[in-house]
Amino acid sequence: MHKEHERTIMNSKMVCYILAKMLGVEAVLLILPALVGLLYGEEREFAAFLIPAAVLVVICAAAGRKKPGNTTIYGKEGMVIVASAWLLWSLFGALPFTISGSIPNYIDAFFETVSGFTTTGSSILRDVEALPQCMLFWRSFTHWIGGMGVLVFVMALTTLDKKNSMYLMRAEVPGPEKDKLVPKTMSTARILYGMYFGMTVLEVILLIFGGMNLFDSLIHAFGTAGTGGFSNYAASVGHFDSAYIDGVITVFMILFGINFTLYFFLLLRDFKPVWKNEELRVYLLIIAVITALITFNINGQYHNPMKAFRYAVFQVASIITTTGYATADYNVWPMLSQCLLVLIMIIGACASSTGGGIKVSRAMIVIKSIRREIRQLVHPQSVNIIRINGKKMSPEILKNVYIFLMAYAGIATASILIVAVDNMDFATTFSSVMATLNNIGPGLAQVGPAGNFAEFSPLSKLVFCFDMLAGRLEIFPFLMLFTSFVWRKRF
Amino acid sequence: MHKEHERTIMNSKMVCYILAKMLGVEAVLLILPALVGLLYGEEREFAAFLIPAAVLVVICAAAGRKKPGNTTIYGKEGMVIVASAWLLWSLFGALPFTISGSIPNYIDAFFETVSGFTTTGSSILRDVEALPQCMLFWRSFTHWIGGMGVLVFVMALTTLDKKNSMYLMRAEVPGPEKDKLVPKTMSTARILYGMYFGMTVLEVILLIFGGMNLFDSLIHAFGTAGTGGFSNYAASVGHFDSAYIDGVITVFMILFGINFTLYFFLLLRDFKPVWKNEELRVYLLIIAVITALITFNINGQYHNPMKAFRYAVFQVASIITTTGYATADYNVWPMLSQCLLVLIMIIGACASSTGGGIKVSRAMIVIKSIRREIRQLVHPQSVNIIRINGKKMSPEILKNVYIFLMAYAGIATASILIVAVDNMDFATTFSSVMATLNNIGPGLAQVGPAGNFAEFSPLSKLVFCFDMLAGRLEIFPFLMLFTSFVWRKRF
Repeated sequence: MHKEHERTIMNSKMVCYILAKMLGVEAVLLILPALVGLLYGEEREFAAFLIPAAVLVVICAAAGRKKPGNTTIYGKEGMVIVASAWLLWSLFGALPFTISGSIPNYIDAFFETVSGFTTTGSSILRDVEALPQCMLFWRSFTHWIGGMGVLVFVMALTTLDKKNSMYLMRAEVPGPEKDKLVPKTMSTARILYGMYFGMTVLEVILLIFGGMNLFDSLIHAFGTAGTGGFSNYAASVGHFDSAYIDGVITVFMILFGINFTLYFFLLLRDFKPVWKNEELRVYLLIIAVITALITFNINGQYHNPMKAFRYAVFQVASIITTTGYATADYNVWPMLSQCLLVLIMIIGACASSTGGGIKVSRAMIVIKSIRREIRQLVHPQSVNIIRINGKKMSPEILKNVYIFLMAYAGIATASILIVAVDNMDFATTFSSVMATLNNIGPGLAQVGPAGNFAEFSPLSKLVFCFDMLAGRLEIFPFLMLFTSFVWRKRF
Repeated sequence: MHKEHERTIMNSKMVCYILAKMLGVEAVLLILPALVGLLYGEEREFAAFLIPAAVLVVICAAAGRKKPGNTTIYGKEGMVIVASAWLLWSLFGALPFTISGSIPNYIDAFFETVSGFTTTGSSILRDVEALPQCMLFWRSFTHWIGGMGVLVFVMALTTLDKKNSMYLMRAEVPGPEKDKLVPKTMSTARILYGMYFGMTVLEVILLIFGGMNLFDSLIHAFGTAGTGGFSNYAASVGHFDSAYIDGVITVFMILFGINFTLYFFLLLRDFKPVWKNEELRVYLLIIAVITALITFNINGQYHNPMKAFRYAVFQVASIITTTGYATADYNVWPMLSQCLLVLIMIIGACASSTGGGIKVSRAMIVIKSIRREIRQLVHPQSVNIIRINGKKMSPEILKNVYIFLMAYAGIATASILIVAVDNMDFATTFSSVMATLNNIGPGLAQVGPAGNFAEFSPLSKLVFCFDMLAGRLEIFPFLMLFTSFVWRKRF
């Protein structure tokens, strides 16, 4: 009875303790852009980073000094921590922009920071190139931190109570615990982050090799690794107009959209599970098919099949991985290409990657569920099991996927209605919500690659922030935070 | 073993027999517009009705003369019959338009007829007023037949194997079998059709009372009863510019969007189940709330709250019941109003009505499922049951609703991509599919109330026909017909 009681109330002391510690981490992270400011002689901006860092240190010291007696936390607390951490980091991470005057309006700064941490890449900046170097660095660095955060989140979820976990996550790949070389979760996590770091460094080197300077290559590698998409140029990656750079970024975008646990197997030279991974195959197949369709569709505009292919594959990789870089203004492409991009916006990348969207494996479950239903209609006696990567999906997992998708549709609908108050055109209204909820960045029409989110009302901007956070956290942790149930002490 | 075998193969002889009989019924129905043609002296059109009628009689006599030995049919056969009947009726029903030259292109004529029988109300006609009277009559009469057909379909489904039936249908209202006054299904059906007929006659009388002539009032009553929306005027109901006529049609549209089994209880003076019906309450609440929002939103355009209310409530009733009549061009309304209309396009009317869309009760199940999921996340031990109208929804019913919605989204997505090839703007592409799949009629932008579907390619028109039929038959019977599984004789 006592134990039951304990589980139904929230261990708020422990939640506060962990959150305080996490704010301390952010204080440390703020030092890096401050140093960049010092390097470029941007003194005012240097101070703008140190002030929030100092505040965060004070908070961390005050609330995170003494560990509570009861350190037990359950899935519920875990979700509240994750959702709150993302929110608090964004609230504090926005301060340097406003303090320095780079983004005077705090709601705009908050939007930009949420967009960074959630690795969305939507921007309210009308002229990104006017920003000081250290601010550009911080903006893109939040992408990289956010991408890392997603991997932490993925790792944390896999250790949660299985009954509570409503996510695909590990369900679809043979878990790395099989492997005897990496026996503990902790070291598994370390290897995961190591690979994230290593791949980023590799991309930086390859970009420098292509003639980019160190600063630009850091910015663009951060954006690629987190599948974020912030660039320090108004023309995005199109600024460089280099087939080599387009190629490098295309390949790395696709790589960061793959389930990270698969890289384990590669490290262990175990190629079979990678080769046999159904989600990976479908993901690559979708990229190939949509690229072919768009290349064919836009060929008439570029009068050069190679150029059409280069732009098409870059944009497809950028959108399906929810990165959001652009080398061409796809607003001027035919409607079929635009609709195909909206489709892969929603599908998104593989589960357990830094990408957003509903994830390829969920889309596969949808298709397989419909197929099974028709088959059962025709052959009522037949038993049809849905398998992903050869693993049987339990009715519980399927139900959770269905509910996830409905919650996704529900949030999209409600957001579109609120944003519609701003009276933009239909393509802008619809795609701005899709671009933020799926953590893409740019959408169509006024929020296309050449546009930005500056024109929206403060209310719409807050709705977009909600959508970016909900999309990033796979909806439910964030919905939970917004639901009163969670704060009730008992049933 | 023999019985098992029997269930897995299709009783195609019995399917053909029933379809032949149903084509005979269409032959009889074609006599009515032929008589209208005679009345108005439209001789060429008179012949155009008699030729297909004669062909249908021959087919019926040839294939429907001898009853097969084995008359047993199962749910599978039932679904194939329903889907094929709708398709065949449309294929033959389109002939008079093409033979008479009123709609020379057969695909256009087929589109118009599918739109009629499915009670959609989308039109490819650039100038509807140029059509001969008997063609206008036939066009609207298909709405009325289609609405009747939906009620037949509803009745048929309730007598099917419960395990096969993937529909809400009766699940959400206390079934009429409770009632001792109407013991047999057959007489229940007869009362249902009687009410449909009676309500149509009442509307005709009330419209004539408002100054409409008999012909116009028949046309508009047919469109209202079937929740179709074909008018014989380019300006739709706006042609009459009468608050009284707007009011009568508004009330009847709302009435025809209500679950028909509820009218039973009213006939029996049993008001409690009607009053307590949750779907009805939510349906009326949605109408009230959306009308209030739109009235407020468009008030600035009309400078007259009463006029704004009149247009708003008419349009809300027209769209949520999926009728599609218009008294104002809502393309010029603010984006919020347009998005609200798209939302209620998708929600649609009550289950077991002549209306389309996903149905209010399915939307309720979605909301309740998400709420339950969040509650279970917070209180893992709690048992949360979803109830609609006080009845517990089984996991099987819930799963079927989820799959239905995903199939719905899948068909919408595939259709949008094909229609996008025509390179219309995004609002037109998106809303044309929504308008046909939900059996509304008009959409936004180029397919708005002042526009039409004439500009689309033949391929897109066929996609719209597929969507109208799939939407009308609640997707699965029609998907089944298009799936090869069904024609395999064995597993």
